[in-house]
Formats: sequence, structure tokens, C-alpha cells
Amino acid sequence: MLKDIIENNQNYQPGLSIDCVIFGFHDNQLKVLLIKIPHSNKWSLPGGFIPIDQDIDTAAVTVLNERTGVEGIFLRQFATFGKIKRNDQHFSKEVLEYLKIEEAKGKWLTQRFVTIGYYALVDFLKTIPKSVNKEEVIEWIDHKEVPELILDHAAILDKALNTLRIELNLMPIGYNLLPEKFTMPELQKLYETILDKKLDRRNFLRKINNIGILNKLDEKKSNVAHKAPNLYNFDKDKYEEVLKNGLNQGW
Amino acid sequence: MLKDIIENNQNYQPGLSIDCVIFGFHDNQLKVLLIKIPHSNKWSLPGGFIPIDQDIDTAAVTVLNERTGVEGIFLRQFATFGKIKRNDQHFSKEVLEYLKIEEAKGKWLTQRFVTIGYYALVDFLKTIPKSVNKEEVIEWIDHKEVPELILDHAAILDKALNTLRIELNLMPIGYNLLPEKFTMPELQKLYETILDKKLDRRNFLRKINNIGILNKLDEKKSNVAHKAPNLYNFDKDKYEEVLKNGLNQGW
Repeated sequence: MLKDIIENNQNYQPGLSIDCVIFGFHDNQLKVLLIKIPHSNKWSLPGGFIPIDQDIDTAAVTVLNERTGVEGIFLRQFATFGKIKRNDQHFSKEVLEYLKIEEAKGKWLTQRFVTIGYYALVDFLKTIPKSVNKEEVIEWIDHKEVPELILDHAAILDKALNTLRIELNLMPIGYNLLPEKFTMPELQKLYETILDKKLDRRNFLRKINNIGILNKLDEKKSNVAHKAPNLYNFDKDKYEEVLKNGLNQGW
Repeated sequence: MLKDIIENNQNYQPGLSIDCVIFGFHDNQLKVLLIKIPHSNKWSLPGGFIPIDQDIDTAAVTVLNERTGVEGIFLRQFATFGKIKRNDQHFSKEVLEYLKIEEAKGKWLTQRFVTIGYYALVDFLKTIPKSVNKEEVIEWIDHKEVPELILDHAAILDKALNTLRIELNLMPIGYNLLPEKFTMPELQKLYETILDKKLDRRNFLRKINNIGILNKLDEKKSNVAHKAPNLYNFDKDKYEEVLKNGLNQGW
């Protein structure tokens, strides 16, 4: 696949790539979808190149669909990374060697690549991580236990998480991360996990109710030992409206 | 200048450019620095290309310094634009014709360019807009009276203004946009101009004081007919701290 791209590089935007930080929520952990690089001990964010006849956003959606099998997921461009030293010459040469491509032919890959970062929030249970070849391992990893990543991927992941934390103040979250019906403690846990801090229960309840995107259902969670908590779901129309207009915490 | 770049294009990142939305505040208007294209009736955002040996952020700073003469200004990457149709073939050919470059030699320019958008907030009075050649006009224009822009520059400008409005909820603003000493009505007017709406005086006063970045000075504004309003300045250390950590409106 990468070999094909390098050998037909005239069909791809030169010096430009896409990297996706794909977040999922499971077992009270914020997980990130990562790929083990076949010829190395390091891991990588799922990414790809941009066909010259494709919008950059379309190319990002393609990467995401290929890797998760999920369509219509929340995807957001968050930053573009372009330090001259972000491309590691040694790494590029290793890749060419692994793919059995001569250095002269592989010149396209060893130039400085600027990469556009996208982050996505996906439903962990609906996602089937896909490797594009047999040698590749793709896995959900707790964001607190991320192994060594190639290039500047650790910085890209940090920036994505930081953006997500900031955007919690600007938009509702949870629609793509929680099951359809959830309890208030589950929603609070999602916020706590992303923010990496404990939140006051009453305060959280007041703030989240003020946003006006939740429906309290006439159902309680079953299979619970103690007092069964109420179930909620999102009012999709109101959720979309707030997502579009932003949380009204403004001036 | 552009001719030099096209003819020595091997020194520049292919298919990638930078566009800067430079905001200044004056006469109660939010102004944008724009360039009249010599061979066209349209205007353009100040922009440039990225030398292969420069970080993208450094290239953006270079564009900004060249155009404004101001150093150390607030500059922020906000989005990258890469629709396949954003490059207008007709426009590219006009440019090549104007620069007297053959189409074959100018192929570098007619490929799809992805452009990285930066926005900057500068002190209007300290800024001396600079044209890079005699035929070029560079001017501050009220953001409400922006003339027709080339390519997708209108969309880039919109996105920058939208980002600035959102970021008012995340960070303090004014340090680069107001004179050193200012009155509370002047600061409120800055917010109102950016947000394009009237704000309640008492609410604004309460919120801005809560941020804790203002010093009330032992001076009043002179040359004022009626009751002289107090002057303020920013506590630079606290301002920088809040800029770094974000406004605490969080969860």
C-alpha cells in the first residue's frame, strides 16, 4: 500500500500527509487507536496521504473509515504540524529499506512532510479496528499507557487531547462516545476521564442539565446491585443545535 | 518576488502556502490587513510560501513581520484549507501571464495548493503596512466592508473571525489590540466589535474583573467632556498566565 503510493507518488499531494487521533471510551478509559509499525518497535497514529483529486477533509474521512469501519463519525481538524525536523531521515530510510524501494525512487518520502491532524470520537463497541496488511497490528490503547510513537506523533496526540479538553467548554460531548442509553455517573465519568480530574457531582449535574440536551428516560439501569440509577439519552436535535452554536457560556 | 519563488520552486515546500488574517482595532472598527492584487480587481490576504528549510510557524512569522514591521505579535494557526477546487486555474494562469512566466515553467503554481491559515492581533497604531513592490496596495479595511477576495480567502477570513469569537471564551484579549492604557468602555467596545453585538455593561464589568488581569490606574482619561472615566492597563504576568491556562469557565 505505502509502496504503491511511493511508486505512484504523482497521484498524491507532495509533502503533505494526514494523521488521525481516534479516541474511544471504554472501561472508564479514554483509549486511542494506534498501529504497531511492522519494521520497528514503535507505534504510530493511523494516517495517510492525500490524493491530488481529493479534498483534505475527504482524505481524512477515508483514513478513518478504513481504520474503524465506522461511517459518519465526528471528525475535526485541529492543527497542522510542520517543523523541518519532524521527519526523521533515519526513519524514512528504514521504511524504504523495509519496502525494498531504492533511495533515489523513494526521494518523495524523504522530503519534509507537513501533516494535518484530525481527531475523531468513535463508539468503541461499534468500531472494528482494521489492519491494512497481515504484518500490521492495530489496537486500542489507554491514553495513559501509550508506548513510544514514531516521529512527532506523541506531540500530535498531546495536542489533540488538549484540544478535546478545551472543546469540552465549547461543545457537548458524549454522543459518539457513550452507548445510546447511559446513566448520569457514566456521563460524569466520561468528562472526568477526558479532563483527568474528579468533578463535583452536584455541580456537574447542574451544568449538564443547563445545556438542555438530555432526556431523562422512564427506565432505570438493570443488573445493578444497589439503588438503580436513571437512564438518559441525548436529544439529538438539541445536541446538534448546541454543537453548531456552541455552549452559551459567552460574553 | 513571486516570480523568483516560482523560478526557484525547488527551495519551497510544494503545494503548500500560508495565509495570514491580520486584525487591528481602530476607530471602533475591527480592521483586516488586505492586499490589492496588481493584475486584478480583487484583494487578497497577505500570504507566502514555505522555504523547505523553515518550520511552518517561522514562515508565518516571516510573512507577518514583512507586512507589518511589528515583531513578537500574537499569532495563531487556526485551520488548514485544502479543497481541490480552492485553486482557480484561471487565476493561476493570469498570474503566470502577468509575471511573464511560461505555463510549462509555471506548473508548480498551478497545482492544488493547500494553505495554512494563521490569524494575528496587532496594534493598529504601531503597524506600518508594507507593500513588497510598487504596484501593490496594502490597506487596513473594516471587516464589514471587505471587497471581493481571490480564491477562498473570504472563507478563510470568516473562519478566522469565527475562531477569534470562540476564543474570546477561552482566553483574554486586548493586549495587542488596545493602547497601553484604556478605559473600561474602550475594552467593552473591543469585545462588542469582535462579537458584533451589544453587551450589558454591568455583566461585562463583573466578568472581566473576575478574570483578574486588569490594574485600575490612579489616572483618569483626560480631554473628556463629561465625567472622566478611569484608566486601566493589563497586568502582563497575570495576562500571560491566563493566556496559557485558559479562562477558568470549565467543568
